[in-house]
Amino acid sequence: MKISPLAPTSFPALPVVAGVRLAVGQSNIRYKGRDDLLLAEFTSGTQAAGVLTRSKVVAAPIIWCQKALRKSKTRALVVNAGNANAFTGKGGMASVARVTSATASLLKCKSEEVLVASTGVIGEPLPDARITALLPTLTRSLHADGWENAARAIMTTDTFLKVATRTARIGGRQVTINGIAKGSGMIAPDMATLLAFVFTDAKIPAGVLRALLREANEASFNSITVDGDTSTNDALLAFATGQAKHTAVKSAGAASLAGFKAALKSVLTDLAIQIVKDGEGAQKFVTIAIKGAKSDKAARKIGLTIANSPLVKTAIAGADANWGRIVAAAGRAGEQVVQDKIEVSVGGTLVARKGARVEGFNEAPVAAHMKGSDIRIALNLHLGKGSAVVYTCDLTHGYIDINGSYRS
Amino acid sequence: MKISPLAPTSFPALPVVAGVRLAVGQSNIRYKGRDDLLLAEFTSGTQAAGVLTRSKVVAAPIIWCQKALRKSKTRALVVNAGNANAFTGKGGMASVARVTSATASLLKCKSEEVLVASTGVIGEPLPDARITALLPTLTRSLHADGWENAARAIMTTDTFLKVATRTARIGGRQVTINGIAKGSGMIAPDMATLLAFVFTDAKIPAGVLRALLREANEASFNSITVDGDTSTNDALLAFATGQAKHTAVKSAGAASLAGFKAALKSVLTDLAIQIVKDGEGAQKFVTIAIKGAKSDKAARKIGLTIANSPLVKTAIAGADANWGRIVAAAGRAGEQVVQDKIEVSVGGTLVARKGARVEGFNEAPVAAHMKGSDIRIALNLHLGKGSAVVYTCDLTHGYIDINGSYRS
Repeated sequence: MKISPLAPTSFPALPVVAGVRLAVGQSNIRYKGRDDLLLAEFTSGTQAAGVLTRSKVVAAPIIWCQKALRKSKTRALVVNAGNANAFTGKGGMASVARVTSATASLLKCKSEEVLVASTGVIGEPLPDARITALLPTLTRSLHADGWENAARAIMTTDTFLKVATRTARIGGRQVTINGIAKGSGMIAPDMATLLAFVFTDAKIPAGVLRALLREANEASFNSITVDGDTSTNDALLAFATGQAKHTAVKSAGAASLAGFKAALKSVLTDLAIQIVKDGEGAQKFVTIAIKGAKSDKAARKIGLTIANSPLVKTAIAGADANWGRIVAAAGRAGEQVVQDKIEVSVGGTLVARKGARVEGFNEAPVAAHMKGSDIRIALNLHLGKGSAVVYTCDLTHGYIDINGSYRS
Repeated sequence: MKISPLAPTSFPALPVVAGVRLAVGQSNIRYKGRDDLLLAEFTSGTQAAGVLTRSKVVAAPIIWCQKALRKSKTRALVVNAGNANAFTGKGGMASVARVTSATASLLKCKSEEVLVASTGVIGEPLPDARITALLPTLTRSLHADGWENAARAIMTTDTFLKVATRTARIGGRQVTINGIAKGSGMIAPDMATLLAFVFTDAKIPAGVLRALLREANEASFNSITVDGDTSTNDALLAFATGQAKHTAVKSAGAASLAGFKAALKSVLTDLAIQIVKDGEGAQKFVTIAIKGAKSDKAARKIGLTIANSPLVKTAIAGADANWGRIVAAAGRAGEQVVQDKIEVSVGGTLVARKGARVEGFNEAPVAAHMKGSDIRIALNLHLGKGSAVVYTCDLTHGYIDINGSYRS
């Protein structure tokens, strides 16, 4: 597997988050000779919140988390890569029960205080005995660092690990937010993401954490797409250990949370962009900024329709400034668009307005921009104040190579 | 350009349709050394009806047809390939005015009795002088046959021409329906199609013709997809010359139309399937049959979501029976689905039911089926009586090659 040309040149070292300990191991469920199982243990009193896939076909771990997250208190998270435990029926739920029960017994907590997440092939029974056999070893090797190994253990077709970290102040005290994520294909909005986990030592009640997470999710994971395919296993989970000694936080609207909100959104956007940059087969990163729409929601839908258009994505792969495909996609998004009002820019150069190509259009600077790997497309619809920025990648031969033979 | 491996081995010879004369020529707008302009002339009194793209970004010829079709009487159709005359502003409408005016003057009719259609690159001004310069020659060479040449003149990235013909009886008299179409990429529903034209000698008023066309369109062109990209130029136009000597038809519900309706639907479905078989880069033809949905509409949406999934399409390209991606796509279609009730078959073999893979599943017959070029996927949702059949093709390297360099 070649590393994505859009991969970051370095990864930040993630600091310890008080109240979180990690361990990884090799369950050999699908991959050989690499870590594929992550156990994260949380201190007593840790608050959890999540945003889960809205698909009607959901994996067993999602069904489990839907229920377990109602309790808000969490002591552990178990993630396996290589098998999604999705469309596995009652057998899949029994696998989750055995994994959570084994973890609970090792950590001396309740099963419902253990969250689980899986990623990989859909429809194959999860050989959970390989997980439960490994859990005692993992429990003994829990330690407060090892974030890079944790991020690596949850990868599937990812070509690089995804981590992000920020600090913020709440009531004068510094708190840390660490995030890890995986995802490369089957990436589309209307979801949480594939798998993303956020860890903080901030002391934030589950209900408030949930509100902050949902808000930050809209502009980050719900604004990216690789292939328009939503996963059965999409899950964004946040854990707040409460070890930071700041003043109590009562509501999501509290003034003391302003810095934390910004840092959380920054971590999620950072991870979301990393996922796009590791989009299967991606050679170019694409930012699509829509403004002047009737609403933010309309702007995002138009941006995502452009971002999901195979014709736009293949033109970008071929460095072809085929802006006609961009306006064609905008026109079929199902949102209000008046073609004579649309302004289209590519790489900062205005290419079309008043329903036609700009007069005396010089394609040279646009063609030069398209040869780069950081493509910027901007539309002003001149209809209202709605705006959105969405992120995607190009569609290349690599995507077809990866997905034509994923299971074999 | 290699011919699609799914191309038919022979084309039917299309008979004369009384009241229709055709001529083709080389305008050299984009292509060199091939016909790219079609003129069809209709006898006085010919009734026309159309189904046009529902995109908000529409080509100048679509705007023209929207208005001209209100008149119902039509004397001519002019189609050019290589330039879509879309997103060309006032200049594009002026081009249409010049082309229709020149045609009307040659055929001694009104401009609004001339319909136009264009297909090709979006956003480039149409050099209409090359069309009007050729029209006098075309008018002189009009003749009652030449259907194959007509079908060939409207092709863009098509690798084979698309024609279909059927006969039917109305009130004891035989009538003929000929159809021609083009399309290979930017093919998606919520539209009429790319370009499809149907010609009949039946005597059917425009209002009735429109109703028949809309109905037949749902199960044909609105049930296919190549890449989910709707075109700015999609147009399905039907022309009834009224030269057949059958009894008058008053309404779309007339019993005498039963045979004609079936033949019309058969012509459109035949053409629609040909378009999918010429899908850009297509190596495999895919039929997705959904039954047991809450409604026919829900069934079609679920079928099209599966058909548009890049993950499903690339798995098919790779002959991988990755049915997990099929249920994942069904789950995100936005329609009611209960995962424990879904039954999935591939190539006639039941692969999943009761929310999981069938017990003792033997993948061998499914794997063998996936190696073929005629892939059949069937889902029974067990929720209601809604059903739909949709058609698509696989997503291969060829699609990326064609669309990464279309304009250059």
